[in-house]
Amino acid sequence: MACSVDTLAPFLGPNTTNAVAAASYICNQFSGVSDRFVDTGYAIDSTYLLFSAYLVFSMQLGFAMLCAGSVRAKNTMNIMLTNVLDAAAGGLFYYLFGYAFAWGGPSNGFIGRHFFGLKEIPSNSFDYSNFLYQWAFAIAAAGITSGSIAERTQFVAYLIYSSFLTGFVYPVVSHWFWSPDGWASPANSNLLFGSGVIDFAGSGVVHMVGGIAGFYGALIEGPRIGRYDHTGRSVALRGHSASLVVLGTFLLWFGWYGFNPGSFNKILVTYGTSGGYYGQWSAVGRTAVTTTLAGCTAALTTLFGKRILSGHWNVTDVCNGLLGGFAAITAGCSVVEPWAAIICGFVAALVLIGFNMLAEKFKYDDPLEAAQLHGGCGAWGIIFTGLFAKGEFVDQVYPGKPGRPHGLFMGGGGKLLAAHIIQILVIIGWVSATMGPLFYILHKFKLLRISPEDEMAGMDLTRHGGFAYYHEEDPKSGTQMRRIEPTTST
Amino acid sequence: MACSVDTLAPFLGPNTTNAVAAASYICNQFSGVSDRFVDTGYAIDSTYLLFSAYLVFSMQLGFAMLCAGSVRAKNTMNIMLTNVLDAAAGGLFYYLFGYAFAWGGPSNGFIGRHFFGLKEIPSNSFDYSNFLYQWAFAIAAAGITSGSIAERTQFVAYLIYSSFLTGFVYPVVSHWFWSPDGWASPANSNLLFGSGVIDFAGSGVVHMVGGIAGFYGALIEGPRIGRYDHTGRSVALRGHSASLVVLGTFLLWFGWYGFNPGSFNKILVTYGTSGGYYGQWSAVGRTAVTTTLAGCTAALTTLFGKRILSGHWNVTDVCNGLLGGFAAITAGCSVVEPWAAIICGFVAALVLIGFNMLAEKFKYDDPLEAAQLHGGCGAWGIIFTGLFAKGEFVDQVYPGKPGRPHGLFMGGGGKLLAAHIIQILVIIGWVSATMGPLFYILHKFKLLRISPEDEMAGMDLTRHGGFAYYHEEDPKSGTQMRRIEPTTST
Amino acid sequence: MACSVDTLAPFLGPNTTNAVAAASYICNQFSGVSDRFVDTGYAIDSTYLLFSAYLVFSMQLGFAMLCAGSVRAKNTMNIMLTNVLDAAAGGLFYYLFGYAFAWGGPSNGFIGRHFFGLKEIPSNSFDYSNFLYQWAFAIAAAGITSGSIAERTQFVAYLIYSSFLTGFVYPVVSHWFWSPDGWASPANSNLLFGSGVIDFAGSGVVHMVGGIAGFYGALIEGPRIGRYDHTGRSVALRGHSASLVVLGTFLLWFGWYGFNPGSFNKILVTYGTSGGYYGQWSAVGRTAVTTTLAGCTAALTTLFGKRILSGHWNVTDVCNGLLGGFAAITAGCSVVEPWAAIICGFVAALVLIGFNMLAEKFKYDDPLEAAQLHGGCGAWGIIFTGLFAKGEFVDQVYPGKPGRPHGLFMGGGGKLLAAHIIQILVIIGWVSATMGPLFYILHKFKLLRISPEDEMAGMDLTRHGGFAYYHEEDPKSGTQMRRIEPTTST
Repeated sequence: MACSVDTLAPFLGPNTTNAVAAASYICNQFSGVSDRFVDTGYAIDSTYLLFSAYLVFSMQLGFAMLCAGSVRAKNTMNIMLTNVLDAAAGGLFYYLFGYAFAWGGPSNGFIGRHFFGLKEIPSNSFDYSNFLYQWAFAIAAAGITSGSIAERTQFVAYLIYSSFLTGFVYPVVSHWFWSPDGWASPANSNLLFGSGVIDFAGSGVVHMVGGIAGFYGALIEGPRIGRYDHTGRSVALRGHSASLVVLGTFLLWFGWYGFNPGSFNKILVTYGTSGGYYGQWSAVGRTAVTTTLAGCTAALTTLFGKRILSGHWNVTDVCNGLLGGFAAITAGCSVVEPWAAIICGFVAALVLIGFNMLAEKFKYDDPLEAAQLHGGCGAWGIIFTGLFAKGEFVDQVYPGKPGRPHGLFMGGGGKLLAAHIIQILVIIGWVSATMGPLFYILHKFKLLRISPEDEMAGMDLTRHGGFAYYHEEDPKSGTQMRRIEPTTST
Repeated sequence: MACSVDTLAPFLGPNTTNAVAAASYICNQFSGVSDRFVDTGYAIDSTYLLFSAYLVFSMQLGFAMLCAGSVRAKNTMNIMLTNVLDAAAGGLFYYLFGYAFAWGGPSNGFIGRHFFGLKEIPSNSFDYSNFLYQWAFAIAAAGITSGSIAERTQFVAYLIYSSFLTGFVYPVVSHWFWSPDGWASPANSNLLFGSGVIDFAGSGVVHMVGGIAGFYGALIEGPRIGRYDHTGRSVALRGHSASLVVLGTFLLWFGWYGFNPGSFNKILVTYGTSGGYYGQWSAVGRTAVTTTLAGCTAALTTLFGKRILSGHWNVTDVCNGLLGGFAAITAGCSVVEPWAAIICGFVAALVLIGFNMLAEKFKYDDPLEAAQLHGGCGAWGIIFTGLFAKGEFVDQVYPGKPGRPHGLFMGGGGKLLAAHIIQILVIIGWVSATMGPLFYILHKFKLLRISPEDEMAGMDLTRHGGFAYYHEEDPKSGTQMRRIEPTTST
Repeated sequence: MACSVDTLAPFLGPNTTNAVAAASYICNQFSGVSDRFVDTGYAIDSTYLLFSAYLVFSMQLGFAMLCAGSVRAKNTMNIMLTNVLDAAAGGLFYYLFGYAFAWGGPSNGFIGRHFFGLKEIPSNSFDYSNFLYQWAFAIAAAGITSGSIAERTQFVAYLIYSSFLTGFVYPVVSHWFWSPDGWASPANSNLLFGSGVIDFAGSGVVHMVGGIAGFYGALIEGPRIGRYDHTGRSVALRGHSASLVVLGTFLLWFGWYGFNPGSFNKILVTYGTSGGYYGQWSAVGRTAVTTTLAGCTAALTTLFGKRILSGHWNVTDVCNGLLGGFAAITAGCSVVEPWAAIICGFVAALVLIGFNMLAEKFKYDDPLEAAQLHGGCGAWGIIFTGLFAKGEFVDQVYPGKPGRPHGLFMGGGGKLLAAHIIQILVIIGWVSATMGPLFYILHKFKLLRISPEDEMAGMDLTRHGGFAYYHEEDPKSGTQMRRIEPTTST
């Protein structure tokens, strides 16, 4: 739509009283129409992005409930408080620095340098809604990590690592892979075999970062008391409420529809010609479908896999399997066919089972399996994308450079896969170089792990003023609700 | 908007240098504008449908929490696992066959035959978002059924019936009434008194199907041990958590705003002329209002009805009454006036109370009242629509054939009501002919009901590796959280 | 976009065969385009408003969970039932009268007088979606009040005050400040120093109204038994589940994104010229950001403030602080800069701590701190807006009268602040004059407070047929789930 007076006026010609004025008048009208389409586009895309952001935010509630249900009752207040504070402290730090480090272009490839405290926002590139969306992502990374170090970490350590992760470590990684200026972004494909990394919604940027950070925390702290008995045998320390685990899992599933399809940011984008039924709205829908199928397949695989291994149908394992499928499909959700998502989910379940076996073998203790799930399945998702990304979809979702490298198994050569292997290594390296030392310093300064006495008693009682659940002694209340006294006679 | 060169060029006339070129140029611009409106429409409608689908999906969480709270603690893991698997197994089966059977047109009136594994999607008719939306509906039907057979059903039976229901029984019914090719759909009104059935969001297609399937399961299994004592007296087996019941009910309410208003699929549709304030967006809002009012009225009716019958204000009964109102309004939500929705909800509450009395009388045991609620209130909703559907709204929501039969009490004659009575009979017949035998075969092969020993002990312990709630014995934790040992001395 | 035949036809001139016909033809096309933009705008804005309404509705679930977790287990059913009925009874009363009193224009400045039972809806001004949105607001006000009087109020008193509040007291206030006809609305700035009140999403209209109503209820009832011991010392009556408190808080946070940004009602509105990146969509996003930052800051302030005061990291206090920040930012969320929201949240946390100290001093007992939080922080939010509202934003959000009075600290003079102080006084006066007498009459007729015996036993047992949580005695269930008998031997 570009009405040209220079084209139209000559058609009207010299016999027309004022051909240029007539053409201008008509073309001005079209220009006004065009402007209204711009407005309309902003309204639609903002609605789309904001509601997606709200969904991603609801994942924080999902994490809180999943974590609460997965720990023992005596640490419930503690873990929930960390989840609330992820969001709250994350809000301030991401506002002050994080968003600037991640998205503050124009910048170098390593770190952004504009938009501190949302200065210069809104701009032609980014609006407030983008900040909200990215904030919800940042706090998700911190939420992942909190699971790994649950039930034994000092609250102050939590405040420190969470701020550092949300305000610096995560934003830098997201700059590399997602900012148009990032050295490894698909827009900047001089490096990495002319490809750049396709980590659409962040199997690496969010899940691996959170998972590996958690890995270092859990490794340096060591297992919870009683997790491995004196003979070295693994003892399950069961979470106190499967209902909360299922609640949290379903909320994460719900929120993932903001996380993955929402990562398009815009829904009103045409692919090729205007006026057809296929456009970014279809790709958005397809992304929701691939996400769903990967999770479903991983859940079913885990159900039957665990039935064979353990002899029973376990709901919390199925929940973790499901989430592993989601973490894996997150990188490639927008660029793979639905059938490929089924492969992704199937392998993700096996990867999670495998990493959990490995963790047991090495006496690693992660109450939420967060390192295994988000780290392990996240890494698989990155490789999966290097294998199964479809050329047509890649060119649509990452336009401007047709014929991009895509999945090895889809005839796209090995460049994308190679770039993705480098992504895995780079993320491991960066998180190891930042979060590893941080946790180690906290450990050395005795700020990381609580005392064994406090760990036995539970952090809720010792740090948070009491237990999460309280049943008053009340003779009138009959037979049910009473405080359980230590019955010394038994 | 159809700019015609043949009309415009002669107005410009022979004195214009090139009238045809000028007119073509102008009309091409309008054609571009028209195309951009097409794009815009896809973006808006896809956003609308996808977020509606997410809401409907959140109902699965609602079902999980409602079911969990309504059963005894010892079966909580079991029922929640079935809800997770409804979604997961449903995802795969609906992707492989279900969606094709339901929507795979062009086809015969009985069953669809395209779109297996989403082949040929997206097309001019359906996009991925439609699949996601319909999948969320399919798993809702299975979720309803799982409530009826809770606390006594083998897990393997659950896997079998759920796959069969989501992959075949439900899709076929939805094809009949909703697919443009369906023999009883409003688009195909040769049969059924020239009317077709108006079951807008599925009081019959979803709720009756799920409820009647549950009825057969619960009937063949018989009541839970202890539900009726040796004298035949009814004994309430109370659910273990009213908090979860209320949580689940509110989530279902929340999700119903995706279920009913979302069933329009598109929001950018004009009724009659363009440029006015009244269009499908108003009908969508009205549908949200009728849904709300029906549920509210049913809840209040149940509150006072049960107060009179039982002497106390019961929250779980109010929750069920509310859901009964929603199940009833689901058929006619888009084509009735708000005041009619109040009648719908009032009667729905009475229908539920009546069916519950009947169930007690016949010693039928349905832990979630699912057959009574979704079957009974669903059937009432279908009749209600035949009585109160307003002609103007029917013509707007089901366009292309003005002056359609509508509600008997609204001056629309008896044809719609007659068609709706046939719908009820047909659904009862179809589900009886498919799910009845299935449950019977499972019963005969001893795959349906668990052993009495397992039922007494609870399925969580015997099948799922432990209980949903776990309170560790820990002397340090003081007076509150300790394992309750069997105190043999008392 | 206004294509004028009178302008265009002369440019084509007399040599054109039919210049008027040509110009008319072209301008008619543009008129059709314009109409389609109108349709598109309705579809987008309705989608935006409806989904915002659904989010606001989800706050009712948040209230239910927050309240449930904050009371003792023996009153859980009671409080949850009141939350369900807020929504249900509110639905009917707001449909019958409330919406008419609030929005039924044209009317006088005190009370509306159209739209009873949604008559004349949809109209050029309001559609069904507006009703749904406003209903969700009305029930939020009633939900706030129910917290203040929890654990000691007769159910019938609850039904009476809730209907009166939702059907009359709240609608009248919302008419004054929000209806274009309201005497204190920004559209009607003859009164109040030529300014009108800017209470964008209702720190006053919703939160103060609910909070002050609760204050009178709690004041007249007096504290719960045991809340202050015989020496007058304050005794914390702890809620029974911090998990439910956190669940409810996060749901309220989630829903607040419908409450505050949704209060724009429309997202497709240009500010000044068309075609730029800045418009109401940006203001909507900014509102989500200010809301987030105020809550985050309040949560962190409370965390550290309470750590200093009480010596531990308290999760429920942090939740309340967070909500206090939200209640405060609600008035000015759309017209302040993000940095100002941080100030708002910081002070809100201190205000809440201060009011809680005051409540303790005067032996006032409010189980949810609702009067302190919604009343106190709401009042602060109104003052805050009078101080920090930015002129540019005020003119954009409340157009039609450029150069409006705005925040005192932003160079906008003292008129807005003065108007806002009057708002606080007027709301206190109105609620005191309506809800105060109502609660007093209920008290005099012995309809307000339950008997001490019932209060000790818990309302669930005495009024609602049993407890919310039920653990069956079952020897087969092993060591965990059994009824706790009163062990008389201890």
